[in-house]
Formats: sequence, structure tokens, C-alpha cells
Amino acid sequence: PAPHPGLALKQAKDAKKAAARQKFEDAFNVIREELVDTFREQGMPKEAIEWYKRNLAYNVPGGKLNRGMSVVDSVEILKGRTLSEDEYFKAAVLGWCVEFLQAYFLVTDDLMDSSVTRRGQPCWYRVESVGNIAINDGMMLESCMFALIRKHFRREPYYVHLLELYHDITYKTEMGQLVDLITAPEDKVDLSKFSLEHHATIVKYKTAFYSFYLPVALAMRMSGIVENPNPTPENPDPYQLANDILLPLGEYFQVQDDYLDFAGTPEQIGKIGTDIIDNKCSWCINTALAVATPAQRAVLDANYGRKDAACEARVKEVFEEVDIRGRYAKYEQAAYERINAMIAKVPQVTASAGEAALRPEVFKSFLDKIYKRQK
Amino acid sequence: PAPHPGLALKQAKDAKKAAARQKFEDAFNVIREELVDTFREQGMPKEAIEWYKRNLAYNVPGGKLNRGMSVVDSVEILKGRTLSEDEYFKAAVLGWCVEFLQAYFLVTDDLMDSSVTRRGQPCWYRVESVGNIAINDGMMLESCMFALIRKHFRREPYYVHLLELYHDITYKTEMGQLVDLITAPEDKVDLSKFSLEHHATIVKYKTAFYSFYLPVALAMRMSGIVENPNPTPENPDPYQLANDILLPLGEYFQVQDDYLDFAGTPEQIGKIGTDIIDNKCSWCINTALAVATPAQRAVLDANYGRKDAACEARVKEVFEEVDIRGRYAKYEQAAYERINAMIAKVPQVTASAGEAALRPEVFKSFLDKIYKRQK
Ligand SMILES: [Mg+2]
Ligand SMILES: [Mg+2]
Ligand SMILES: [Mg+2]
Ligand SMILES: [Mg+2]
Ligand SMILES: [Mg+2]
Ligand SMILES: [Mg+2]
Repeated sequence: PAPHPGLALKQAKDAKKAAARQKFEDAFNVIREELVDTFREQGMPKEAIEWYKRNLAYNVPGGKLNRGMSVVDSVEILKGRTLSEDEYFKAAVLGWCVEFLQAYFLVTDDLMDSSVTRRGQPCWYRVESVGNIAINDGMMLESCMFALIRKHFRREPYYVHLLELYHDITYKTEMGQLVDLITAPEDKVDLSKFSLEHHATIVKYKTAFYSFYLPVALAMRMSGIVENPNPTPENPDPYQLANDILLPLGEYFQVQDDYLDFAGTPEQIGKIGTDIIDNKCSWCINTALAVATPAQRAVLDANYGRKDAACEARVKEVFEEVDIRGRYAKYEQAAYERINAMIAKVPQVTASAGEAALRPEVFKSFLDKIYKRQK
Repeated sequence: PAPHPGLALKQAKDAKKAAARQKFEDAFNVIREELVDTFREQGMPKEAIEWYKRNLAYNVPGGKLNRGMSVVDSVEILKGRTLSEDEYFKAAVLGWCVEFLQAYFLVTDDLMDSSVTRRGQPCWYRVESVGNIAINDGMMLESCMFALIRKHFRREPYYVHLLELYHDITYKTEMGQLVDLITAPEDKVDLSKFSLEHHATIVKYKTAFYSFYLPVALAMRMSGIVENPNPTPENPDPYQLANDILLPLGEYFQVQDDYLDFAGTPEQIGKIGTDIIDNKCSWCINTALAVATPAQRAVLDANYGRKDAACEARVKEVFEEVDIRGRYAKYEQAAYERINAMIAKVPQVTASAGEAALRPEVFKSFLDKIYKRQK
């Protein structure tokens, strides 16, 4: 019997996605070899080379690769055509650099959060004989990024813009990390430090810049899109425009992530939510705090951030009482409409064939991936 | 009675040194204000601003400032004249960036080494409520560096060279740190991992690049000295030349540091040496291992890296037996002569007034500061 047409379509889509991921992963193998060769050429001892290889293999690939692959996808959309092999590889290098940057953040974040597992394996610092050496390993991952950009983009007119982007976004991410660390220390619960305002700052700085703005801005640079030094409402600066749309998009993504940590089933989200137990400064707790009665507030104070299933259950009860589910549905609908309206205002560029332009589709593709996401 | 003429000379020299240090420290106050203003303008919460300020004040100034001030001194020598106020400040920014970079390394190194004190105060991670947040604080110090360079050098033709220098040297320092960390873990003594070859790699990568080559190369860039793409023996590339002289100079400096840790009195070196107790991969132990009899080797294996004064004394006895003092005197004399010979070969440039040139004096000033140093 012929397969169901909807099923065949889904299978074709999944196969295309798997092929795209495979192609992106193939680029990593080339990149890793380059890095290891350079490291070896410095005359490093054998054990150091082995350590370095293990650091790269353990910490860089293995994630969802959404951020890295979105650089490649964005370059394709901006250029309005499929990429040559050379263009593909260069876009993939920039994408992998975002993954290296993320690896730098995650390796160090896990140490600071005393986390146990990451991507289904022990956190790097918990691997036998690694420990605090993970700090230097993380630092090296950042250096790899600059070595790669230098090697592949040195002669490009936008080289210095790439460097400034990585510098600027790295700094902003660290600012967000700082606010997060002092607002919600893992071991000292104090909900009076929480607020939706702090949450918005943390989310914007710690996540939205590097996960949403950075990949698109890199793709824009690689596509030859330049700033507009004299922006007007009709003719805005493309980087400011991208910023204005992608930061709210990143906030929406993180609020959704926080919500699913509470409301998603393990089958949906692929893990068991631990934000309540981990004292996370999440959208759910901040929303609950903003509307809780004194009695509900007392329950939250007494039970949030405790390593205890009964405490967690009591917090979840309050979340249900204050209707976090309904509030999230409203938040999501409003965010979706607001971002969509901004995207609708992006000028439809009728660029001549082969000329890159900031097309609204680049933002639309992000929003469509996120809206009503269940996992 | 008139003061002794030699004494008056020394007093004048000390006063000049103190004034130079004061001027350099004044530049830091300007830099710190700039950084805090930028941080505040991002809309960071009050507690984060306070934390950030404390991070800067605790970790950046307070060292010997040799590396940072050597950038300023080198620009003066290369230009062959005193600097204008604007030139001074820019050179000081580059110098402070080396101090920021060092602060990034030291904050993280102290965590990795479980060190207790640094510059006469508790290590940053040991300060109340800091702990592992020190990792992110260190990372921010590196980001400060790039923000400062961007702000002050963006329009300079050598801007991208400055960025590449900091990237490249940061990476190399991390390579040296990795070799050090896996060769001499603080908690697991295994002298079979040690060798003079490993020691040379560690010293070159972990110390010499950022402490000696980086300040001079930055000064050369700021002075407008460009690479020579077609080097000959008579007309070498100035950056290669600087590298060839400054890396051995850095090695000599670190060997001397290692030697003084063993042989210097606390009055001389301003601290009590702990390299033996801390299982450091020092020049002394590597030299001893290279010539020890089997009996002496057994003593070293049984006593090196133990947190025990009697063990330390036994190691010191072997050091005396194998004549570390005599061997060091020979090493120092040979290093001094070898480096001096290289400096003597640097072409005496008769640059027209005001034109920068790679003068041998820039190297000579480093060597003179180090030779037969007692502290
Ligand atoms: Mg974490
Ligand atoms: Mg964290
Ligand atoms: Mg989450
Ligand atoms: Mg140390
Ligand atoms: Mg160390
Ligand atoms: Mg020492």
C-alpha cells in the first residue's frame, strides 16, 4: 500500500533535516583537524594534544546545534540562494564558532552551578582527572574561536566586524551571567532578589544576544550587509532592526523554555524540569511572585529552591493556583503577535538576483520554529 | 651635612619611579570609570554594578605592574622621545590591557591551583560569597580588555593587529597553562612527568609570550612599526626579531624566578618560596632530576610536592648536593651573554627624529632590569 501522503512529506522533511545536520557536523571534523594540527605545530607534548582533542570532542559537538546551524540557514535566506561549497564552509565556520562560544559558556556555567550532567553525559569538570582544569579548557574553546575566524576570514573586509561581534556578545553574555549568579545563587534562596525586571535583564543578556542576535548578525556580515550610519524610520539600520526583533524573540524563547520546564512532560522536553529545585530565576516563579497573595508568597518562600520533591510539589500547587498556564498562553499569544507585527514592518527588499538583503524571512524562520513549540 | 651623592642619585631615581607608577595608576582610574559607566549604561542592576566595581578594584591593580608599564616605556624608547599626553594615555591603555589579561589568568589560575593568597590578600575566589563566581569575573576582565581596545583604537590602522596580538598570546598562554596543569597537578606528584624540555615549553607558553613579547609587540604596533613580508638576515622582520630575543629573555626571567623561590631569602623575594611544597614544575627540580643519582632521585620522589617542612628540607638538601646554586650561576651567565649577543646584532637604526624604529635599547632595558636581580 502507498504510504500516507502527509507521512511521506514528514519523512522527506526529517531526511532533509538529518542531511543538513550531517553536513554541518562534517564541517566540524575539518575544523577540529585544523585546530589540532595548529596545536601540534606549536610543539605541544603528546599528552597535551590528547587532552586538547578530548576537550574539543567532549564539549563542542553533541548539542542541538540550533545556534550554529542558524548561521548557515540565515546566510542562505539573506543571499536568497543556495550556497557554493566554499560559501557553505565559511558560514559553517561562523556557526561552529557560535557553538565554541556556547561551549565556553556551558563548561564554565556547569562549574559555577555545580551541575551534574549536560547533554546526557557528566559535565566536563566531573570527568575523571578534569576538575578545575575545565576552567582553562573552557578558556581555550574561546581562543579556538578567534583562531578559526582569523584563519578563514582574515582577508575579508568584514573581518574586524566579526571580531567585534564575538567580543561584544561575549561580554554581554557574561553580564547576564553575573546578574543571574548574584540574583539566584544555587545555595542561598532569597526570593526578594527576584523580579520580572531582573528576569528580563538576565534573559536578554545571558541568552538572547548570543543565541538569536549573534547568529543573524554574523550571517548579515558574511552576506555583505553594512550598517546604515544615517537611519530613518523608513530606512533603518539593518543591525538595529535585527536587534530590535531578535532580542524580544530570544526573550520569548527563554520564557517558553522556563514554562516548559514546569509544564512540559518529560516525554515532551526530553528531561525532567529542575528549575524549582535549582532556585532558578525563571519566568514562572517571577510571574507567581508578582501576583501571589501573602499566604501563597509564604509557601513560595518556604519551598522554592529546596532539594526536596514535596517542596517542589507545593511550589507547583501555587503555580497552578495563580494560573501560570493561562498567563503563559496569554504571554505567548501577545509575544507572537508583537514580534510578527515587527517582522511585517521589515521592508520587502526587491534586491537584484544574488544580492544580499535583510529579508523578513530570516526572522520569520526563527519565529516559526519557536511558536507553540512543545519541546 | 650634604647627603652622600650616591644616595641622592638613588633617591632621585626612586622618586622618578614612584612618579611613573603614580601616573600609570592615575590612568587606571580613568579606565575604570569608563568601564563602570559603560556597564551602568547597559541598565545593569545596582548590585551587579557594585560587584563589577569590586571585581575591577580587587583584581586588576595591586601587582608590580611591570608588564603594563613596560608597554609605556617601550613606546617611549621606540619613538625616541617623550610622549604627548594623548600618546601616553593610549600607551597606558594598552599596558593596562596586559594587566587585565594577567588578572584574567591569575583569578582563574588561583582557582585551578587552590591557592590561598595573591598579592598579600586572599585570592578572589576565597573572598566571602565569591567562590566559583570568580570564573565569570575572570572572563569579564578579558572582555573589558577588548572593550577598551575598541573604544580607544578603533580608528587606528593597527587596530586589528592589536586584537590579533591579544588573541594569539591569550591562546598561547592557555596552551602553557594546560601543559603545566597536566604535568604538575597540585595533588598528584609524579616526577616522571617532569623534564627540562617540558619546563621550557611551560615557561615559554605560560609566561614569556604574555609577559615579554606581548608588551613590546603592542608598543611596536602603536609606534607604527610594520612587519617585513620579505625578511633577509640583514633586514629581518621586526616582530620575528622581537620574538627571537624576548622569548629567551622570558625564559631567563622565569628560571631566575624559580631559582629565587629556592635560594632567595624572604627579605629578598618578599615571600616564602613554596614551589617544592606545591609540586611546581620548576627549573630547580628539573635540573636536579637531570643529574640526580638513583639515591638522590629516590629522595626527590619521596619528598617533592609534600605539604611537610621536613620533606621540603630533604629536597633542598639534594638541591644543594647537585649544586643548583653553581648550575644557576652558569645558566645565568650564559643566558645573559647569549641574549646580549642577539641584542648587539639588532641593526642600529638611524631613524629621522620622531620616526619610530626597533632600537636595541628596548631589549636592553628589559635585560638590565632582570640581570642579577635579587628580588
Ligand atoms: Mg547552569
Ligand atoms: Mg548558571
Ligand atoms: Mg530551562
Ligand atoms: Mg598558580
Ligand atoms: Mg597554575
Ligand atoms: Mg615563582
